[in-house]
Amino acid sequence: MRQFLIEEIKTWERFYRANFINCLTGFKPVSLVGSISSSGVPNLSIISSIVHLGADPALIGYINRPVAAAPDTITNIEHTKCFTINHINESFLHQAHQCSAKYSPEVNEFEAIGLTERYEEGIIAPFVKEALVSYEMELVEISPIHYNKTFFVIGQLKSVFLEESIIDADGFLNLSKSGSIVSIGLDGYAKTEMITRLPYAKP
Amino acid sequence: MRQFLIEEIKTWERFYRANFINCLTGFKPVSLVGSISSSGVPNLSIISSIVHLGADPALIGYINRPVAAAPDTITNIEHTKCFTINHINESFLHQAHQCSAKYSPEVNEFEAIGLTERYEEGIIAPFVKEALVSYEMELVEISPIHYNKTFFVIGQLKSVFLEESIIDADGFLNLSKSGSIVSIGLDGYAKTEMITRLPYAKP
Repeated sequence: MRQFLIEEIKTWERFYRANFINCLTGFKPVSLVGSISSSGVPNLSIISSIVHLGADPALIGYINRPVAAAPDTITNIEHTKCFTINHINESFLHQAHQCSAKYSPEVNEFEAIGLTERYEEGIIAPFVKEALVSYEMELVEISPIHYNKTFFVIGQLKSVFLEESIIDADGFLNLSKSGSIVSIGLDGYAKTEMITRLPYAKP
Repeated sequence: MRQFLIEEIKTWERFYRANFINCLTGFKPVSLVGSISSSGVPNLSIISSIVHLGADPALIGYINRPVAAAPDTITNIEHTKCFTINHINESFLHQAHQCSAKYSPEVNEFEAIGLTERYEEGIIAPFVKEALVSYEMELVEISPIHYNKTFFVIGQLKSVFLEESIIDADGFLNLSKSGSIVSIGLDGYAKTEMITRLPYAKP
């Protein structure tokens, strides 16, 4: 085992360093965030920084990149207060990854990448029709992270769409069954295989 | 596919609801956070809310549960400004999961759960000797999330320990090779299998 000091890492070539550091946190949940502009243009972003904040109230957050790099989703959410989160399956992985390209704000990214918009009554933001697990979020707060111009976007859960067959008897979701994938680094994707569930731990 | 409204979810039995909502974000990176108290008691927490914030500067955050539920790690980090993050392998999964039990602050959790402390020169916080990938963090900020009394703990990367054999030619870390696992919900664990890496996406 070798130690790599940050002073050494900083001297590395930019893409080598970005690959290394982006992989460090391990395999990540990866989803498509659906939103719509105030003028009605649907938008999709691929996000691998989604984090569970608490079950009661049901709060979920994600890190939005700096506005200069990724302006559309955060602008849309600011205006409409509404977004959707859609799990990714291997069957549409290539289309999902294509969402990381920087399209102009006037481009309908569903059409550009080849996925299908799905609208549900009373929900302005588009869902990804191909997704087997998706949920509707309402904006709670956009909190700036000053150190690197990113934003912590916090939302509250409004509703969930999924097949009842993946819900276990105690509410646990069998996402290996639904085929939800994970990502690693900037461009890697992996599938999962359940090892086990363990009993509630006591001292 | 069925829609579940939050108004319905809120009526569910507490553990059923917690399982369902904790699973929603998908498979998560799961690691052991090592810290030490100002009186020298080592501490370990199992954390599944670790999130990459940016590569330059190299910032990584995690969500700490409310102080009433999980006081030790956050108190230690506040005092020492230092913590370690250690990937979990299937070989010590049961010990890692046992870290979710609530031990008294005076208990050395490495001894209580059966993992080995490893200390490195100039780093006060303990590493998990059994981990194949681990890294040293310095506290940047503890940001309270008022809606549910959790905290967003932001740190900057100081150094990394891993086997050079898992680093690919372009800096990508092959964490399927090192066997880093993921978690799901409150008590589920899964292993991963790489699907692919995809080229940089352009419009």
